[in-house]
Amino acid sequence: MPTASRLISRRDLEFLLYEWLHVESLSERERFREHDRESLDGVLDIAEELATEQFAPINRLLDEHEPTVGADGTVVLPSELKAALEAYAASGLGAATFDEQYGGGQLPYVIHAASSMYLQAGSVGVIAYPFLSQANANLLTQHGTPEQIEQFALPVIEGRWFGTMALSEPHAGSSLGDITTMATPDAAAGAGGGSGSSTGGGAYRLKGSKMWISGGDHELRENIVHLVLARTPDAPAGPKGISLFIVPKVLVSPGGTLGERNDVALVGLNHKMGFRGTTNALLAFGEGSFTPGGQPGAVGYLVGQVGAGLAIMFDMMNEARIGVGSGAVSLGYTGYLHSLDYARTRPQGRSLVSRDPTSPPVMIVEHPDVRRMLLAQKSYVEGGLALTLFCARLVDEVRTAPSSEERAAADQLLGLLTPIAKSWPAQWGLTANALAIQVLGGAGYTRDFPVEQFYRDNRLNAIHEGTHGIQGIDLVGRKILRDGGVALAALAGRMCATVVAASGAGGEPAAHGAALATQLEAVQRVVTKLLTDADPTPALANATAALEALGHLVVAWLWLEQEVVAAGKTGVFYDGKRAAAAYFFGQELPKVPAMLDIVERGDRLTLDLDPDVL
Amino acid sequence: MPTASRLISRRDLEFLLYEWLHVESLSERERFREHDRESLDGVLDIAEELATEQFAPINRLLDEHEPTVGADGTVVLPSELKAALEAYAASGLGAATFDEQYGGGQLPYVIHAASSMYLQAGSVGVIAYPFLSQANANLLTQHGTPEQIEQFALPVIEGRWFGTMALSEPHAGSSLGDITTMATPDAAAGAGGGSGSSTGGGAYRLKGSKMWISGGDHELRENIVHLVLARTPDAPAGPKGISLFIVPKVLVSPGGTLGERNDVALVGLNHKMGFRGTTNALLAFGEGSFTPGGQPGAVGYLVGQVGAGLAIMFDMMNEARIGVGSGAVSLGYTGYLHSLDYARTRPQGRSLVSRDPTSPPVMIVEHPDVRRMLLAQKSYVEGGLALTLFCARLVDEVRTAPSSEERAAADQLLGLLTPIAKSWPAQWGLTANALAIQVLGGAGYTRDFPVEQFYRDNRLNAIHEGTHGIQGIDLVGRKILRDGGVALAALAGRMCATVVAASGAGGEPAAHGAALATQLEAVQRVVTKLLTDADPTPALANATAALEALGHLVVAWLWLEQEVVAAGKTGVFYDGKRAAAAYFFGQELPKVPAMLDIVERGDRLTLDLDPDVL
Repeated sequence: MPTASRLISRRDLEFLLYEWLHVESLSERERFREHDRESLDGVLDIAEELATEQFAPINRLLDEHEPTVGADGTVVLPSELKAALEAYAASGLGAATFDEQYGGGQLPYVIHAASSMYLQAGSVGVIAYPFLSQANANLLTQHGTPEQIEQFALPVIEGRWFGTMALSEPHAGSSLGDITTMATPDAAAGAGGGSGSSTGGGAYRLKGSKMWISGGDHELRENIVHLVLARTPDAPAGPKGISLFIVPKVLVSPGGTLGERNDVALVGLNHKMGFRGTTNALLAFGEGSFTPGGQPGAVGYLVGQVGAGLAIMFDMMNEARIGVGSGAVSLGYTGYLHSLDYARTRPQGRSLVSRDPTSPPVMIVEHPDVRRMLLAQKSYVEGGLALTLFCARLVDEVRTAPSSEERAAADQLLGLLTPIAKSWPAQWGLTANALAIQVLGGAGYTRDFPVEQFYRDNRLNAIHEGTHGIQGIDLVGRKILRDGGVALAALAGRMCATVVAASGAGGEPAAHGAALATQLEAVQRVVTKLLTDADPTPALANATAALEALGHLVVAWLWLEQEVVAAGKTGVFYDGKRAAAAYFFGQELPKVPAMLDIVERGDRLTLDLDPDVL
Repeated sequence: MPTASRLISRRDLEFLLYEWLHVESLSERERFREHDRESLDGVLDIAEELATEQFAPINRLLDEHEPTVGADGTVVLPSELKAALEAYAASGLGAATFDEQYGGGQLPYVIHAASSMYLQAGSVGVIAYPFLSQANANLLTQHGTPEQIEQFALPVIEGRWFGTMALSEPHAGSSLGDITTMATPDAAAGAGGGSGSSTGGGAYRLKGSKMWISGGDHELRENIVHLVLARTPDAPAGPKGISLFIVPKVLVSPGGTLGERNDVALVGLNHKMGFRGTTNALLAFGEGSFTPGGQPGAVGYLVGQVGAGLAIMFDMMNEARIGVGSGAVSLGYTGYLHSLDYARTRPQGRSLVSRDPTSPPVMIVEHPDVRRMLLAQKSYVEGGLALTLFCARLVDEVRTAPSSEERAAADQLLGLLTPIAKSWPAQWGLTANALAIQVLGGAGYTRDFPVEQFYRDNRLNAIHEGTHGIQGIDLVGRKILRDGGVALAALAGRMCATVVAASGAGGEPAAHGAALATQLEAVQRVVTKLLTDADPTPALANATAALEALGHLVVAWLWLEQEVVAAGKTGVFYDGKRAAAAYFFGQELPKVPAMLDIVERGDRLTLDLDPDVL
């Protein structure tokens, strides 16, 4: 079956959104009352068209012309990037999920997530600017004062400004508790005072360096709203001493007029292996490049309470991490579709059974090993898509489920699944991209085809927004051990329900359900052991194995869900779902016992190792 | 323990070469009588110094300045590349393994392989030119006439010219039987005739296109000797209709003087994701860019018999494929050492048990998950190094073992191991490079550190010289099914001997030996089933799973070999061997059953798949 788009399969999206997740039923809820199937489809249409016509065509160009620092010290970017971002701003997609009171469209988050994947597949480096900005504005609408929302969130929601998250410092990446950027109360400022802004939050002066800031500097917008983590004087050491500040690149008067430059200076850009459409900067705050209000230090405005900075930031982390996973799936998905097209049109070799050299060569999609590589990709990217959309649907449940119990249950499950939704696609979407290259062979290794770029772009996703290893510790330490396995038990209950449904469907779904039940039982046995172990360190030391095992279990479950939905339905689309599920249950789920055994036996090899022997 | 070099550990090389493979004993053989431990070490010294001082320092530069086609149609390369190649030519390493009669040093191949790995780790793109040239000249010394050797091999052995292997065509990559380049006997030529050369082989005129030719064109040397596969008029279809020809870029008079340009024209260069130091070209033969001797067609000289081209080429393939595996190990190895250095010097975070934020941060090598990533790399790259050197040692056995029985046994084992020696390092060396990036985090994703380049360079190795899938079919079809499992049985016998030795050592080696024996038994059970199956297609369809399972089994065996050698020896080096072996047996060998099960059950999913469902 020819693929209409090489970004994301629309048919697959509709299967997952409507046949599986019943997203159209969300319109029964007050927040989504303006939406129906037609309007939701319209959002997907806009995103698909924008991605196809404006994003994908410049994706290679952005890779070849990475951001540079010009002679005047500003960031030089291809004009095509700005044009694509203008087209995005004009599409109205940027404000889609925000509240109506902020000019938003109150779109279900799950539709936003689905439409976003077209844009990530089209050019993950372009869409990162608005996505980071939306996360920034979203944080402010949740935690900012009305004045801060008015002054700093609304221009971002409107798409006139961009925003960043400035967390890491050169010496503190994963260990944010060790940041040293200092924010000192600005005696000269006060409400509406000398720093030129009235935000309701107190004014501070910041000094320090911030590293790895995506969208950290550019001339794409007239202002950039940085959300900056910093310590305050006399704050306790570690995570509890960290507060959050709005630090605009250009100061803003109470009426919204742009004023003088704040002391936020570009020190340099990082030169990345991929993901080059997005600038990534080292920034200096308050180092004296500018002296706003005639005083030293970058002007910043406290968000929320002093000392609550990390908690506020992590409150937004679920969505940011799902967004990373979503990007990883999208890159994997478009790579899969490109390699599928190639496999269907590239003649080479003959079948295993008929090697007659006088017969015409077959298309390489006929070769079992090529089919293996395509099925593997399909199982990873469609499984990853299901994972992303399931989590996005949970975001809507957290916000709008009818009862507080349902909202709490959704929040708990989302918390448990977030490290998986981030890390599993980063690992297996990348594996899919490696297979896409392999299907194309030498051609895939050249820059004449896009798959090598997808592979380079995707390699970032196991690193940013918390590394793979950090996700494992989050899963085991915070999401399983800390709550005594309650969230996992709830997930297991859902899995059991699917197993029961699959059993009713009979045939392969029933067999796959039985296999899932066996692995689930093993996981529960291991978790029970971890919960009763006096010493948690072996569990934490082997957290990556636990993360990967549980990730495969969850995706196997989501494949079983898809099989149940597809049961009894005929046609190549549903047969494709069955084939990919068969692949996952036949070749992927069997990898779980070896991973789980590392956790179960509490392997101490890495804990006890003398590092001198390395 | 600080690492002296970040290319390959000299201590590890010496352990494998002398403590394990007893390479110095080769000097007892007539061919190697001029060599002793001191001279062998001298070769390693030269290679390490050359790689450290001339290759590694320009590796990034070659990545940033890939080959281009200049205004005059010639290939433009950085001058630093030429300088590094001159230094290599001056080192004498190029002729080291050749016979004394050809000006060679009759160096044991295993030492050549070991020394080569320094150069591959230093810059895989630089060393590819001489390595391809040596393979070219080696083929001619085996299959060429005395005149062809004199005229075309000796200048290459001396390092004055380079050589290529021109096999693929734009429409025929993996399926060489489908090439269409045509070689027509040159009526005007004959011995010493109009084409300006007397080689003993008949003169032909060639016409056709050749794709993916590494070192295919450049101005680094005054001549390039292409070894070209082509069909002859009336040749049968398929592999048996293919012959091999010498096609020099510049014609050569019988006295060795360079004459007019042959009709070999550069059509274009491929733009690769990595491995950019090596030109990779599309060449046109006999398309009329030049008219040597006033006649159309590229002048070529037949090597060996008409129709024997593929057989001759595959005769050289063992070494070429081991060379690819060697490069993959080398890139993995240097990435490991770079990430190890980083992990030892980068402070970040605190230990799992002491999270006091007022305590100083620890070096990241203290974190169990970082240790996991380092141990995994160590187990892959040191295991891969053992695999490469074991196979290289077999090359020496094939050439010089005292009895014909021993030579035949070595040849049989080498044939079986070659697809593994090529594919296992390509897969796991790349995995090591991905982990090296991960250890460095965001820094690893930037071009400020070399690990991202190693990752890009290494991605080629699963593609060239026979893709990963081709290696699987070679292993299962040609190396196991065709000989009725005889070679595998011989390998199993060697493994059993190691298990017995490990059992005698007691402790962990004994336990690991028992685990290996269990997996070996499973492999033998599966192979017995395959040999008795009436239909070989499921085995071939699942050949990649078999390749990967057997690869892990072989490397586990080589780790057990190392443990046996290390048994009873003390110190951090041997403790490191034990730790990496424990990692491989604890976390890698347990992956085998799931892979093997795919083969054993004769999974028909990919065979029976309707490709329309993809």
